[in-house]
Amino acid sequence: MEKPLKYAVFGAGSWATAIVKMLCENLDEVGWYMRSIYTKEHLLKEQHNPNYLSSVEFHLEQLKLSNDINEIAAYADVLVFVIPSAFIHGELEKLHIDISDKIIVSAVKGIMPESGLLVGEHFHEYYKVPYDNIAVIAGPCHAEEVALERLSYLTISCSDEKKAKTIANQFKSDYIKTKVSDDVIGVEYAVMLKNIYAIAAGIAHGLGYGDNFQSVLMSNSIREMKRFIKKVHKMKRNINNSAYLGDLLVTGYSVFSRNRMFGNMIGKGYTVKSAQMEMNMVAEGYYATKSAYLLNQKNTRKTSMPIINAVYEVLYENKNPKKVFKKLTDRLD
Amino acid sequence: MEKPLKYAVFGAGSWATAIVKMLCENLDEVGWYMRSIYTKEHLLKEQHNPNYLSSVEFHLEQLKLSNDINEIAAYADVLVFVIPSAFIHGELEKLHIDISDKIIVSAVKGIMPESGLLVGEHFHEYYKVPYDNIAVIAGPCHAEEVALERLSYLTISCSDEKKAKTIANQFKSDYIKTKVSDDVIGVEYAVMLKNIYAIAAGIAHGLGYGDNFQSVLMSNSIREMKRFIKKVHKMKRNINNSAYLGDLLVTGYSVFSRNRMFGNMIGKGYTVKSAQMEMNMVAEGYYATKSAYLLNQKNTRKTSMPIINAVYEVLYENKNPKKVFKKLTDRLD
Repeated sequence: MEKPLKYAVFGAGSWATAIVKMLCENLDEVGWYMRSIYTKEHLLKEQHNPNYLSSVEFHLEQLKLSNDINEIAAYADVLVFVIPSAFIHGELEKLHIDISDKIIVSAVKGIMPESGLLVGEHFHEYYKVPYDNIAVIAGPCHAEEVALERLSYLTISCSDEKKAKTIANQFKSDYIKTKVSDDVIGVEYAVMLKNIYAIAAGIAHGLGYGDNFQSVLMSNSIREMKRFIKKVHKMKRNINNSAYLGDLLVTGYSVFSRNRMFGNMIGKGYTVKSAQMEMNMVAEGYYATKSAYLLNQKNTRKTSMPIINAVYEVLYENKNPKKVFKKLTDRLD
Repeated sequence: MEKPLKYAVFGAGSWATAIVKMLCENLDEVGWYMRSIYTKEHLLKEQHNPNYLSSVEFHLEQLKLSNDINEIAAYADVLVFVIPSAFIHGELEKLHIDISDKIIVSAVKGIMPESGLLVGEHFHEYYKVPYDNIAVIAGPCHAEEVALERLSYLTISCSDEKKAKTIANQFKSDYIKTKVSDDVIGVEYAVMLKNIYAIAAGIAHGLGYGDNFQSVLMSNSIREMKRFIKKVHKMKRNINNSAYLGDLLVTGYSVFSRNRMFGNMIGKGYTVKSAQMEMNMVAEGYYATKSAYLLNQKNTRKTSMPIINAVYEVLYENKNPKKVFKKLTDRLD
């Protein structure tokens, strides 16, 4: 019998905390790296994350906690990264052990802004991790509902189907169903793009557009996402599968969505800075918007992406959301 | 110059009222047939529909009101039918003038339960209206938001593109954008099917499933809808266009959706009868479920449609929604 793989999670936000919870349903021990000494001490004392999903109680004997990224990376065979794209580069600078034989699972929602690389690409390039060892995990899955143990579905993508299935099995539980896919790149882009569309949905809502328009916006978003992903990674995929459309919908419609909330504040007249300060966090879609925009700029034949462009104009060119969205409505159908 | 076409609307529910409002933005006069003498009298006295969208004020000089279906049918060139599918058969029994040269626009959301025919098919069969004269109007468009003049998009489908454009032009206004399509049959089925999926969404919500599951359900619904429509009318269509996916989303997610509300009550434990009594109306999706189910029964190679089947079992076979949906969750991905 093969030795069971050890898993570790890197990050301590809500999605990271949810992932640790899901893995604890199946594994005797889960490694968990977090930057904050305070969070670790609190977990040891109170058995829950002080900042996110604090209703989730952990059993300490199941957790191998550390503030040392190298210790946890050395401990595990499967490294699940759940650090916001804006911070992952800084965190990875501390990682210097050889991880070329590990399996990397990205649960990061975006491109690394410093390099324009997907997380998988980064690990391949800088840590010599073969692409067959790189997986992506996608929802539709709000962390808050995992905390409540509400039925959710995950898609694990890896070009090596056997590995995808192995990982999927560790996430499966009474309230988690999983499927596997081989579209690592497409799913990773989808995970990133959906946050931009959620910001668009939020802006529209903040501007006073209603449910009728929102559904037109989502219908156009999934078509735009399909074009975008086809351009960067052409392969046969059903864009209406849960990992693409489902994840877009949960992010675009749910009250739990921070990206939608951020957009909503912008639509209501907040500046980008004040919305970020008010929320005390930066919505992933903020960075994703710039990454997607720059990526398309590089194309000689640009993808038609009026929604991403509109969000870019509002967030990065300081244009009036009302005017930008008025113009956008003429581009949608 | 061609003589402008006269339009008439048949029905006095919320969607009919919204359609009259939209047409009044462009036309000097709109014919309006309604069964209820009381509604007509109230409109004449108070300038608004007593029962639906009563905030919408009409100018009486723009309305040609009548309780005589033949009078209004004779008056107009374009007859827009907006009567619930459960009642249209009874209403049409009163219609005996020759309408074979008129343009028929169906805004009915469903198959006629008595015959299993689409509304267009019924007019073709019984009134000798050529298929080139039959159009369908689809959202995503909640009537309530039309009343509020919130930006909405309509799709007008007709196999004769010129007619589709002519009709679309009469609906266009500051708050209505239109597009045309030649997929009359596909759009008419989509309009019907979305109500079943909205009931499913409501049942799931009533049973306590959350946003994560809802998005998986919608992602599966659009794939199921695509299979269903492909089976009954194969042609090239983008199922993610607003008339299909957009309409599904606005119905599945919106608080305005009566079908979702009906499903929600069933999920919470109401019987079908008591939910209908409580709502004081019958949700269109209730009939659509049976029609879609029966249509699929006729196929020698059945379409895989686990969601419609689950709703059918709950509504017509009196099965326990909790158990049926538990089983359904295993069929989704």
